[in-house]
Amino acid sequence: MNILITGGCGFIGQNLIKKLLEQNHNIVVFDNKSLDIKNKNINFIVGNFENIDDYSYIFNNIDIVYHLISTTTPNNDRHKIEYDIRTNLIPTIKLLNICVDKKVKKIIFASSGGSIYGDSSNKHTEKDFPQPYYAYSINKLAIEHYMESFYKFENLDYTILRISNPYGKNHINKKQGFINVLIDKLKNDETVEIYGDGNIERDYIYIDDVIDALVLSIKHTKTKIFNISTGTSYTMNNIVDIVQKITNLRPKVKYLPKRNFDIQKNCLNNTLAKKELNWIPKYSLEEGIKKLLKD
Amino acid sequence: MNILITGGCGFIGQNLIKKLLEQNHNIVVFDNKSLDIKNKNINFIVGNFENIDDYSYIFNNIDIVYHLISTTTPNNDRHKIEYDIRTNLIPTIKLLNICVDKKVKKIIFASSGGSIYGDSSNKHTEKDFPQPYYAYSINKLAIEHYMESFYKFENLDYTILRISNPYGKNHINKKQGFINVLIDKLKNDETVEIYGDGNIERDYIYIDDVIDALVLSIKHTKTKIFNISTGTSYTMNNIVDIVQKITNLRPKVKYLPKRNFDIQKNCLNNTLAKKELNWIPKYSLEEGIKKLLKD
Repeated sequence: MNILITGGCGFIGQNLIKKLLEQNHNIVVFDNKSLDIKNKNINFIVGNFENIDDYSYIFNNIDIVYHLISTTTPNNDRHKIEYDIRTNLIPTIKLLNICVDKKVKKIIFASSGGSIYGDSSNKHTEKDFPQPYYAYSINKLAIEHYMESFYKFENLDYTILRISNPYGKNHINKKQGFINVLIDKLKNDETVEIYGDGNIERDYIYIDDVIDALVLSIKHTKTKIFNISTGTSYTMNNIVDIVQKITNLRPKVKYLPKRNFDIQKNCLNNTLAKKELNWIPKYSLEEGIKKLLKD
Repeated sequence: MNILITGGCGFIGQNLIKKLLEQNHNIVVFDNKSLDIKNKNINFIVGNFENIDDYSYIFNNIDIVYHLISTTTPNNDRHKIEYDIRTNLIPTIKLLNICVDKKVKKIIFASSGGSIYGDSSNKHTEKDFPQPYYAYSINKLAIEHYMESFYKFENLDYTILRISNPYGKNHINKKQGFINVLIDKLKNDETVEIYGDGNIERDYIYIDDVIDALVLSIKHTKTKIFNISTGTSYTMNNIVDIVQKITNLRPKVKYLPKRNFDIQKNCLNNTLAKKELNWIPKYSLEEGIKKLLKD
């Protein structure tokens, strides 16, 4: 198949590219940089996502679009909201219009399982009421709604994966993704910073399991939204202990004041993806961390 | 109090101004036009909402902001979505930032009870899952989420009124609002156009009842979102019959093909507003139509 990936040079994108090339797909990557990959089946188009309508020609004959670009990370700076809308939401509308014009069969979107539901002590299912409360997740939810709208009125098929907290190799953002940051710091004998008392709970998922779900989404057409998660949450302090147990090294931790936009607990029910996508997550947290340490 | 109204020259705005002047409030209206009202307590500032940050000085000493501006009406034109985001959503973020900077006490937003919930055979309560599926209502919901975010992180108080389908005097859009259009056409002996078979159901509410809810929202601080509706829905054909009964004139109707973005039925539960806002809607559909015919 001919597959276009927006944001293909990011964490998820790099891992997805590897898998899709193994399966002999033809890939076009649109990002603001490129990767040093020697393979005749991949082309990198370097550009600014805000100008995606200048690049509509790269969507000719594309079957599937993976939309992975995100120009922001979770924060609560009210002065960055407009930037978020201008650089994520509006270009995504342009992208959806191009997909319709170019008769793309399907768009697959990496949404935020980690923030879209808001806080909760229960495991969220896809039927739960999303309660995003900062720009990052408000925008992700708006994009989800627009995808539904384009499906309803323009017949553009879509799958949304609400991915919890992915970790694993090629995690390029050195400040985000607690497990990756912790292991980087440990390897460099540096101190990791934790906001709050370390009891924030997250549903961490190994990147290979995320990639499996993204690939399975190519052919699935029925249900539109899936949680992609392990269904088990761990505190940051749990993670520190588990890494110590595996490595026999004690990570150095500095506790900082709690951030007011961090959700206390996030854990997602993954039953629907297992049942309908035939997705089988393979890695427990310990196995994932061991794999990451070897990578 | 010092009250600023965005979009004060529109249908809801004109009716709200009249009520607030009766109550001796000081009013600033921001809109792209002005009204011919002679009263020392009102000032009109004419400008483009997209440039609202150039007008932050008009928010000095403002206690309450009514946000009534909307640059679009429901449609399903995918090429208008970007315009909707640029002219409604982004300027609203600017507005929220100005409200924080200028220490406005509260913002009151006219949201869309008529489209935000999506289709349903039951009466929606405020706890129901919003399912907006075209740009107009996706944007309204995103604005609701941003208001919650500004309340949570910046302590900007807000009330959202999800208003069903208002009708009544000063309805300036001659194409929108079925009851007003029908009566205008009847008065001019013209034919009214109905998309579909006339069995689309709506929860029509008389404007004076909407204004009462908007005014009551100034002082209410607890619950944030209220449906403002009658709780009773009527088909367009019902409306034609009721108008005939009241006027003894048969409206001329032309039925056109159904539009794919029209929701089949919309009816909202108004129990919460009655209980917590102490709001008492006064007009039945017949009484409202009779009042409109006299106005």
